[in-house]
Amino acid sequence: MGAKLTCLMTVGIVGTGLIGTSIGMGLVAEGVTVLGVDPNKDALQVAQRRFGISVPAEIGDLRQCEVVFVTAPPRYCAQAVIDVLNVVSGETVVTDATSVKSEIVEAVKQKIGLMPNFVPGHPMAGHEKSGPEYASQWMFRGAKWLVTPHEGCSGSAIKKLEKVIALLGANPVRCGLEEHDRAVAVVSHLPHVFAALLVKYGAQLDSKDIGGGSWRDLTRVAGVDPDLWTQILTGNKKPVADLLRLAAADLESLAQSLDEASLSEPEKNRGVESFFRDAQTAKQAFAETPTFESKPNRRAKKSN
Amino acid sequence: MGAKLTCLMTVGIVGTGLIGTSIGMGLVAEGVTVLGVDPNKDALQVAQRRFGISVPAEIGDLRQCEVVFVTAPPRYCAQAVIDVLNVVSGETVVTDATSVKSEIVEAVKQKIGLMPNFVPGHPMAGHEKSGPEYASQWMFRGAKWLVTPHEGCSGSAIKKLEKVIALLGANPVRCGLEEHDRAVAVVSHLPHVFAALLVKYGAQLDSKDIGGGSWRDLTRVAGVDPDLWTQILTGNKKPVADLLRLAAADLESLAQSLDEASLSEPEKNRGVESFFRDAQTAKQAFAETPTFESKPNRRAKKSN
Repeated sequence: MGAKLTCLMTVGIVGTGLIGTSIGMGLVAEGVTVLGVDPNKDALQVAQRRFGISVPAEIGDLRQCEVVFVTAPPRYCAQAVIDVLNVVSGETVVTDATSVKSEIVEAVKQKIGLMPNFVPGHPMAGHEKSGPEYASQWMFRGAKWLVTPHEGCSGSAIKKLEKVIALLGANPVRCGLEEHDRAVAVVSHLPHVFAALLVKYGAQLDSKDIGGGSWRDLTRVAGVDPDLWTQILTGNKKPVADLLRLAAADLESLAQSLDEASLSEPEKNRGVESFFRDAQTAKQAFAETPTFESKPNRRAKKSN
Repeated sequence: MGAKLTCLMTVGIVGTGLIGTSIGMGLVAEGVTVLGVDPNKDALQVAQRRFGISVPAEIGDLRQCEVVFVTAPPRYCAQAVIDVLNVVSGETVVTDATSVKSEIVEAVKQKIGLMPNFVPGHPMAGHEKSGPEYASQWMFRGAKWLVTPHEGCSGSAIKKLEKVIALLGANPVRCGLEEHDRAVAVVSHLPHVFAALLVKYGAQLDSKDIGGGSWRDLTRVAGVDPDLWTQILTGNKKPVADLLRLAAADLESLAQSLDEASLSEPEKNRGVESFFRDAQTAKQAFAETPTFESKPNRRAKKSN
């Protein structure tokens, strides 16, 4: 019965890049009809060849969709959301998938007001490469998908979106808009800045090719698309800038503790040691975090 | 014939923790007789049970070894190296495995002078947990092993050490002492500081459990042993403190670029964009880095 229900569903994707095509691939695999819209016809073709969309479409065709995912980059996202909201009825849920929330919601609000069927969202998954070529049907399996309703969202629209998210094997998590922006600054934007800094320093070394596991892990996302990540950081500029300044102060303070430290006089190392001790305590708060391996989403388990 | 040669070899391990036991396990698997020395008898027992050492020993027994690995933590390393050099003949190569080099070499030099059979070294591999329980026979497969000779090292001692390193499947890379210290500050020490900062900020969030792949990667090493890592950073304090201050300045500068940036006026985003563009260029310098998967050490391949 579940299969029959999903087969009757039609979903729209606006922007068939890495994220849009991955959403499409996951939904096509579940029997959903996926309409794809993208000004870039090459991307649309790749998405179709990879079963990321069932059929290329124009924005007007999205009227027939139950849910439309707008996965345009931050700079174009608000306008694309507005364009879709202007053609669909109140029955179609419109969501986005950018890592920037308050700024986009504010832009939509300014121009057309916040409609009950617009439910902003943000999947916590991705890839260090861009484009539909790197899309994956399984990208969202076991991942968190932040659902960040504004005050005027309709409850049934939120639930409809969460049902589609669950089809992808992801776990929907509700989160306030500002809470989202502060949180992603920490769990996504600052990690990307750190990775970028590390490769820049590493590229200046004579002995370039010596890093171990921590180096490989921490620099994996260092080569991300500069234009896209400029938009992401810019769209979330206040929480990110605040966090960068906090980190700068903490690094300066650790440097001062190191100036005083001594290998042979452990009593002088309290500052450095408490830095690592606090981190160990903080890490333990995450130790119980369920991952895909340890606690897969029920739906994902069934379809394996 | 290779097998017979390795069977005749005896190697000593002083400090049967994570690194020492991993070295021992790799060598025992290659037919080497491994003598283990550790003041902690429990660690010694675990190491023996896991085939990380062939037999527990006292420091005087190390006279019969061709190579002795001192894998004590930085604070005790110089003294342990001195203790071993004081009992073995010039035929036994003595090396260490700490991530701190100039400071330890200087301490040995001050106390007993730099002998030709003391060849400092540092394997670029490890694990975020400590102790022989987490040791692995394959820890060094495909990893770089920095060999950092001082001026008085004998060429044959260096070669003997490199032969044993290759037995472990690692790739020996020669590197100057100061170059080593600057390089590991970048490829190991700063990544561990960044990971620590991230979990500290993350633990303060209401929405703790939302991170995706970049978060998991960048915080993997955040819970490392505070005492050990205090010693590591303290032993390399000058290069690390310099780098922390450079990173603090770069973060402050990126924050300033963000203050000026605007999603709707891309011409204001040049500072942020050049930050990510530089990183992408730097990352490409590492793109050709051979990894274990793409280019395994010949010996490791054979024994698979």
